[in-house]
Amino acid sequence: MKRLLITGAAGALGRALRPRLALLAETIRLGDIAPADVTGPNEEWMHCDLAEPWAVDAMVAGCDGIVHLGGISVERPFDEVVTGNIVGLYNLYEAARAHGLPRIIFASSNHTIGYYPQTDRLGPDAPFRPDGLYGVSKCFGESLARLYFDKFGQEAALVRIGSCTTEPMDHRMLSTWFSHGDFASLIEAAFRSPVLGCPVIWGVSANDSCWWDNSHLTWLGWRAKDNAEAWREKIETNAAKPTPDKSMARFQGGAFTDNPIFKE
Amino acid sequence: MKRLLITGAAGALGRALRPRLALLAETIRLGDIAPADVTGPNEEWMHCDLAEPWAVDAMVAGCDGIVHLGGISVERPFDEVVTGNIVGLYNLYEAARAHGLPRIIFASSNHTIGYYPQTDRLGPDAPFRPDGLYGVSKCFGESLARLYFDKFGQEAALVRIGSCTTEPMDHRMLSTWFSHGDFASLIEAAFRSPVLGCPVIWGVSANDSCWWDNSHLTWLGWRAKDNAEAWREKIETNAAKPTPDKSMARFQGGAFTDNPIFKE
Amino acid sequence: MKRLLITGAAGALGRALRPRLALLAETIRLGDIAPADVTGPNEEWMHCDLAEPWAVDAMVAGCDGIVHLGGISVERPFDEVVTGNIVGLYNLYEAARAHGLPRIIFASSNHTIGYYPQTDRLGPDAPFRPDGLYGVSKCFGESLARLYFDKFGQEAALVRIGSCTTEPMDHRMLSTWFSHGDFASLIEAAFRSPVLGCPVIWGVSANDSCWWDNSHLTWLGWRAKDNAEAWREKIETNAAKPTPDKSMARFQGGAFTDNPIFKE
Amino acid sequence: MKRLLITGAAGALGRALRPRLALLAETIRLGDIAPADVTGPNEEWMHCDLAEPWAVDAMVAGCDGIVHLGGISVERPFDEVVTGNIVGLYNLYEAARAHGLPRIIFASSNHTIGYYPQTDRLGPDAPFRPDGLYGVSKCFGESLARLYFDKFGQEAALVRIGSCTTEPMDHRMLSTWFSHGDFASLIEAAFRSPVLGCPVIWGVSANDSCWWDNSHLTWLGWRAKDNAEAWREKIETNAAKPTPDKSMARFQGGAFTDNPIFKE
Amino acid sequence: MKRLLITGAAGALGRALRPRLALLAETIRLGDIAPADVTGPNEEWMHCDLAEPWAVDAMVAGCDGIVHLGGISVERPFDEVVTGNIVGLYNLYEAARAHGLPRIIFASSNHTIGYYPQTDRLGPDAPFRPDGLYGVSKCFGESLARLYFDKFGQEAALVRIGSCTTEPMDHRMLSTWFSHGDFASLIEAAFRSPVLGCPVIWGVSANDSCWWDNSHLTWLGWRAKDNAEAWREKIETNAAKPTPDKSMARFQGGAFTDNPIFKE
Amino acid sequence: MKRLLITGAAGALGRALRPRLALLAETIRLGDIAPADVTGPNEEWMHCDLAEPWAVDAMVAGCDGIVHLGGISVERPFDEVVTGNIVGLYNLYEAARAHGLPRIIFASSNHTIGYYPQTDRLGPDAPFRPDGLYGVSKCFGESLARLYFDKFGQEAALVRIGSCTTEPMDHRMLSTWFSHGDFASLIEAAFRSPVLGCPVIWGVSANDSCWWDNSHLTWLGWRAKDNAEAWREKIETNAAKPTPDKSMARFQGGAFTDNPIFKE
Repeated sequence: MKRLLITGAAGALGRALRPRLALLAETIRLGDIAPADVTGPNEEWMHCDLAEPWAVDAMVAGCDGIVHLGGISVERPFDEVVTGNIVGLYNLYEAARAHGLPRIIFASSNHTIGYYPQTDRLGPDAPFRPDGLYGVSKCFGESLARLYFDKFGQEAALVRIGSCTTEPMDHRMLSTWFSHGDFASLIEAAFRSPVLGCPVIWGVSANDSCWWDNSHLTWLGWRAKDNAEAWREKIETNAAKPTPDKSMARFQGGAFTDNPIFKE
Repeated sequence: MKRLLITGAAGALGRALRPRLALLAETIRLGDIAPADVTGPNEEWMHCDLAEPWAVDAMVAGCDGIVHLGGISVERPFDEVVTGNIVGLYNLYEAARAHGLPRIIFASSNHTIGYYPQTDRLGPDAPFRPDGLYGVSKCFGESLARLYFDKFGQEAALVRIGSCTTEPMDHRMLSTWFSHGDFASLIEAAFRSPVLGCPVIWGVSANDSCWWDNSHLTWLGWRAKDNAEAWREKIETNAAKPTPDKSMARFQGGAFTDNPIFKE
Repeated sequence: MKRLLITGAAGALGRALRPRLALLAETIRLGDIAPADVTGPNEEWMHCDLAEPWAVDAMVAGCDGIVHLGGISVERPFDEVVTGNIVGLYNLYEAARAHGLPRIIFASSNHTIGYYPQTDRLGPDAPFRPDGLYGVSKCFGESLARLYFDKFGQEAALVRIGSCTTEPMDHRMLSTWFSHGDFASLIEAAFRSPVLGCPVIWGVSANDSCWWDNSHLTWLGWRAKDNAEAWREKIETNAAKPTPDKSMARFQGGAFTDNPIFKE
Repeated sequence: MKRLLITGAAGALGRALRPRLALLAETIRLGDIAPADVTGPNEEWMHCDLAEPWAVDAMVAGCDGIVHLGGISVERPFDEVVTGNIVGLYNLYEAARAHGLPRIIFASSNHTIGYYPQTDRLGPDAPFRPDGLYGVSKCFGESLARLYFDKFGQEAALVRIGSCTTEPMDHRMLSTWFSHGDFASLIEAAFRSPVLGCPVIWGVSANDSCWWDNSHLTWLGWRAKDNAEAWREKIETNAAKPTPDKSMARFQGGAFTDNPIFKE
Repeated sequence: MKRLLITGAAGALGRALRPRLALLAETIRLGDIAPADVTGPNEEWMHCDLAEPWAVDAMVAGCDGIVHLGGISVERPFDEVVTGNIVGLYNLYEAARAHGLPRIIFASSNHTIGYYPQTDRLGPDAPFRPDGLYGVSKCFGESLARLYFDKFGQEAALVRIGSCTTEPMDHRMLSTWFSHGDFASLIEAAFRSPVLGCPVIWGVSANDSCWWDNSHLTWLGWRAKDNAEAWREKIETNAAKPTPDKSMARFQGGAFTDNPIFKE
Repeated sequence: MKRLLITGAAGALGRALRPRLALLAETIRLGDIAPADVTGPNEEWMHCDLAEPWAVDAMVAGCDGIVHLGGISVERPFDEVVTGNIVGLYNLYEAARAHGLPRIIFASSNHTIGYYPQTDRLGPDAPFRPDGLYGVSKCFGESLARLYFDKFGQEAALVRIGSCTTEPMDHRMLSTWFSHGDFASLIEAAFRSPVLGCPVIWGVSANDSCWWDNSHLTWLGWRAKDNAEAWREKIETNAAKPTPDKSMARFQGGAFTDNPIFKE
């Protein structure tokens, strides 16, 4: 690619992924409302408030691929969720439509289905059961993405990220952990594939106790390589084991199900 | 019931349903941003802009059932959709939560799945394929409803209305027609049932050529009684038959799939 | 048939069915541990304690069809359940094997699946979820029946009876009611069919709010004719409507789920 | 339609259907290798040997709809099956492709799945289990039809005819009977529908003991009206009931499963 | 755990597992009707006849986990099966209920589904098809376990053991073998998991030709490590290959399907 | 085996497989219409035109296993397809029936389902969607094979070969490649298994991006060992990547979907 846009590039996930994606394009454009350290030789930063259509349009112009990590990524008051994840996503999609439909990797979330019990195994077609307003905003996002695919042919990977961290740190993450390396190789595979469509993809490593089934996705030629099981002993030593009545042991979304509807 | 709230009561659907629901409660509260003619002996009107949390709260207070027909019901610019169907629905749900979780009949839409071809038969778990921003807002609404059910036990019937008119008027409506009588008997059954949960319900009559499968719903004890087939001859005489390449003959959402993304 | 055996013939269900089955055979043998009034011209009574192998053998000898209503039909202490429904059923099957494998109609029960919520719709392959020791004994019975079919070709209809009474009497029975007429016509169809195999059959009338799906059974040519809906008004007038937290409104097995493990 | 072609028009099925289809087109062309009595005012006969490409081409020219009943319809030696149903069908499809892709009603057969036991209930996607060379030739035909639909957009209804006779005459036909009236109304619905695609359709009336499931087809707006059950008493009086070991009681294809591979 | 109870500890399977489970608890209580050699430093033996409620109660008291291997494990006369596996299991469950619901690992069996052909692949919800009275008693056991889970929350792993031996010894065991190591790691995972519920688990190693599908179980974080394939050459050299008509080549339960109903 | 017949032995696939199958039988009979170099010490050549029943009969006589690679393997005019793959297969099956039903490995093809999009994952029961006349002839072949299995018990493995070459050479073959080694080990497993039946088997290696699901086949004890992924770098360097609108990127059958109906 000539230019790959990474939104939310100044966030934790953006910083972790940037070096791993550097070779995917001649230029990596870092979009964020916050300043992003430009560290790579082919990186450029562009300030952008996702709520402003003209700013999003300028950011997307000239890019032939988008990794959309921007917006709200935790539970927040509803007006912030609307601004960042609902209006913001609409602005991004309108900009992509105006600029040639560059392929999009959309950071969706396991919190779209967080109320399923941990004993369920889910495929991509399980109905939404969001665990908070943040999760609902990602349901909105996946629905909007599907609309633009059906109406305009806008391709996107809807990646329901589990827990994307350096290493798994609690019992739930033995199931939900998504290594930075596996996320990067998934992004590479999604851009490499001649056809992408608009699939739901579970963003999770090859963990022994994974709840999610990516077997519908074999055509993509991507296989997760890491396995949270390697950290089990460390976790069982360091982390308190949740009792069976706790949300961390009951629901796939874990403690998000305990969140109140957030008001400031 | 003591008091049943009907939002959007001044609209076409509200006016058609009101006489049929009059016996369900001692008082029928008609909520709308526009004035609603108070015609029934037990009706009362209350002005309400769904975008104002305090107004919604006042409208919901004292009601033990809600038929939510309010908001945008056609394709409109995105900011109107956000205000009426996203912020507005959040306000309604927060008000219901504050006032004892009265059961809600939520007017969702077939436009949540409008991009499926007419040769598909859908059950309630088919993934969303909205056919416009209006449809996406209803996907948001169903997701929010599911969240409040899982988190707070708020019961609701998510009624994906087909074409709710006095009679079917074109070829597509031979499949999608939902008679006023069948909608009214569904609302009655949903309030009557000891348990409701949060089911997706296809709002459609017992049409010979119906695309949607309500067989998951037999526990409710509701059966549609009307059948659009009775109007076939009249329609075939009066309405132009769509050619196979037209959206009216291809997609379940019909001409909505032709809509552009609406901008004013 | 020459001789049809009805076990448990002195019980309420036996008495209700006998006149309706009189034409199925030249002689109707009434088997029961209690005396059964011989009222029909072609009826004969035979005393039998199901716990005694020799008594069961004598009762079965010479019969070319069996309607097995005998044994325990309510929650009772475990030793009674073992004697009547576990040892008793084994004795019946051994006797049938010794006497030419006469076709068996086995009165199983909805209490084999009583813990499913009322909002589920079940087909014949749903795993067991019994609601008491009585229900467990019927799970045993269905398993034994399947064994004798696979090993010896013993055909049987495993009829999971809902609520077989003169008329439906409470809200749950709007879903579970099985009219005497429909049971009788099912028995006739099961004996008439050239091949029976060993199917699970939901013993339920054509109620609007039925939870159970007999669509796997169309080959049998049997259709229930009655519908509990005809009694709704009477029930809604006379019977207390269960609140949503009550087992009568939550579980398919109704109040059986409230039963303790019975000890005398 | 201007001109509707009925092949095999001189056969029993052709003769029964012709009066019922007379209003579908201005001219009804009767194609057959045998002379067909021209009885209707708008009928014309055209001689055609399906094995001759040029003859088939001439017969198809000028028609805007085809009801293909021609070819072999019983078990015959393999070379006859190849000529009539394999080469013949290829010729018909090539002619249709050359003349504007007129919609085709293809008389397939229950003998494509005749080896399924009668206790199975089949949907349209059950893998083939033909019961003879005739059945295999219809598997070929459905496969060829699907190819021409995917490659050229040739629409066709693949009607797996059960037993299309004036009335049901044996126990198996209580399940498989397809009345002439229901076949005619199906043909009308298939030509009327704006879109047809290439669906498998079970050609069977609304028999109580039907084995086949047309519920995928509700979009077509066709419902069978007749029911073989009305003849049960007559059949049980006049026809010998098959014993359970007989193919007429075991397999959906009935006695066809007993046929040897036919050699002359 | 403080104290883990292993019933049937004097049997072959008990002796094989004991050293592998020694670290799971401070004390390992060995329950059996036969004397069990106390060989481990933290083992204690307790005599128990499962048919005696008071004896079972005493054995269970003070244990916070149970591995239930006791009872009949081969085909035996019905009265022995009733005593050991039906009354005995009821006694065990009543004792567990009286003593705080310690988690149970229940040794169920592949003989609950032994009549399925070897060419079927089974998930946990396949209906029972037991291959003998022993198998029926395990169907009873799984049903009782489900009852106590639904009614009282008693958690249990229902392990359908294949062939748990030191190494696989015949062709069928290439599919059914369950290594001692894999069983021990499964038991550890079942006690370790914060939530267990009442799942059916196929007790089988990671054999290339395994018939059973544990993919519903990924949340448990257990993976079998051994593979019978490593013994194929040895088996093909030493064991007679069954001909296709033999039960060892036809049914999942193997030679158990040949057993008569056992009488002494 | 005493004698294994390989038809089409002079073709590319035949030549590649022969050395790998040499140990399966004392004698390897090479059947082909073209001369086959006899290179192995236990090979014998026999000329055979599949269109001649007597020649096929002579070739099959005395063989106790058949690997049927003969016939047309690319798109050709319809009369050649009929002769080689329809009449020829019938002749082979009739010969096998006359000579004791030796087990058959039938080289079917992915072109039976070539019109499915590459984003679908198929199991063995997906309805046929052939991509040409060659593909249709293989649909015929699988249907005929199923008939002879149901009617006569003729066992066969219906191997839908992907791309059986020395190494994968383009992007599509990263999904479809079937190594010679994996095909040989599959043949060995199919002859080794006590029971074979008549399964559909995807002939494909363990490629990361495989579209086809063999999980129904675990009872066979066969696992593919090779993985096309090892050649990805080489392919991405040497082969042009198809654009998303090309059949090579859209359909499972690849460029076969572009073929016209072949006429000479």
